[in-house]
Amino acid sequence: MRNKTAAAIVIGNEILSGKVVDSNAAFLARELRALGVSLERIVIVPDDLGVIGETVRDHAAGFDVVFTSGGVGPTHDDITMAGIAGGLGRELVHHPLLVEKLRAFTKGELTPPKLKMAEVPAGAELIFDGTLPFPVVRVDNIYVLPGIPELFCEKFMAIRSRFAVDPFFVRVVYSRAPESAIAAHLDATLAAFPELLLGSYPKLCEPEYQVRVTLESKDETYVNCALDHLVSCLPPESIVRTE
Amino acid sequence: MRNKTAAAIVIGNEILSGKVVDSNAAFLARELRALGVSLERIVIVPDDLGVIGETVRDHAAGFDVVFTSGGVGPTHDDITMAGIAGGLGRELVHHPLLVEKLRAFTKGELTPPKLKMAEVPAGAELIFDGTLPFPVVRVDNIYVLPGIPELFCEKFMAIRSRFAVDPFFVRVVYSRAPESAIAAHLDATLAAFPELLLGSYPKLCEPEYQVRVTLESKDETYVNCALDHLVSCLPPESIVRTE
Repeated sequence: MRNKTAAAIVIGNEILSGKVVDSNAAFLARELRALGVSLERIVIVPDDLGVIGETVRDHAAGFDVVFTSGGVGPTHDDITMAGIAGGLGRELVHHPLLVEKLRAFTKGELTPPKLKMAEVPAGAELIFDGTLPFPVVRVDNIYVLPGIPELFCEKFMAIRSRFAVDPFFVRVVYSRAPESAIAAHLDATLAAFPELLLGSYPKLCEPEYQVRVTLESKDETYVNCALDHLVSCLPPESIVRTE
Repeated sequence: MRNKTAAAIVIGNEILSGKVVDSNAAFLARELRALGVSLERIVIVPDDLGVIGETVRDHAAGFDVVFTSGGVGPTHDDITMAGIAGGLGRELVHHPLLVEKLRAFTKGELTPPKLKMAEVPAGAELIFDGTLPFPVVRVDNIYVLPGIPELFCEKFMAIRSRFAVDPFFVRVVYSRAPESAIAAHLDATLAAFPELLLGSYPKLCEPEYQVRVTLESKDETYVNCALDHLVSCLPPESIVRTE
């Protein structure tokens, strides 16, 4: 079975100007990995209608599923819905169910900034999974999520189960020897286990080990055999421990 | 004058799979902001030759300057140089100066994993600014930086001044005291000099100092007065030196 692929598009000048550090992409990366979905791209773009539209359109065509983060509030710079509509050549419309939700929610007059939050690209679906006070907007394979980390997380968790494919099994070796000293053994292991996903991460400030090596596969037996192979290659004194 | 634009390309499966949280893009965003350079895109791509090549090529054509992070070590998954070479239609060659540096550095035989670290796209320039033990590789408008955060930071800081547009004047204080002990003095300085850009960068592995404090302004006299103010606040024994 082909892997299900995903891309994340984070929208916001505040991140590109260094005023806010994005945490939504890293959260999504961990969640998708656990679900067995292969996150293959993260793109951070400015609050620019054309750039948002083009980036979302291209990634929606290239990946199975796209998540956007940010730009869905009531202010002038919240232009994600308009950007997506433009990119897909759709009209931007007020979704009647969202207008109704907003009216009940605000208990007052729907001012233009509030009404703006009912705008979606034509053809959007509202997802009311879980106990969300406000639905997730889906446009084709694009899931539009808010930028505020707590809300991003809450909304993703409510729709999370839709994306489960099959999970990876991960094993780890911590090496006391530097990366250059174990590189040949990593290569040998990869030659013997070509389907293995092998990662090697040097750590500078860690007294216990110099390199964290990760071995991954969707086949548990395969990854265990690869671990045994690598451990048998490495000088025993270089191994701090395995996990 | 048109803004100078920049893009950051972060390379690494470990980030897309959620095993490592990237911090280099956020660091770069803050630094470029201070320099007056407009960071307009951050893209995180997998360890894939074709994707790296295409992404770097497209962004090098679309922005004034491109920074890459990661994929320049000795292991099988370090393919940034090969990716850039492929994307630009250049050969991948051993740079004689890098081979020489590596030979001096390793004091031993240059094994293939070590020699791999001398590979660059044909036509690359080596930048020996500052006191770098190992140069920065530049290919056209592309600056190739390592993924390990301490090294990414060290190398960027060594070449930082090249990118100043409407430059800031920067003064630095190295503090032997931890950040928590000097925070109140930083706040007091900022209260007295509200236009000052003040940065505080703790360093974990540095025997000489614990915090590098940067003071910045486009007005040289202003930043010098602010430095005098901060130095007069700090306990004298906490100051290693100023720059």
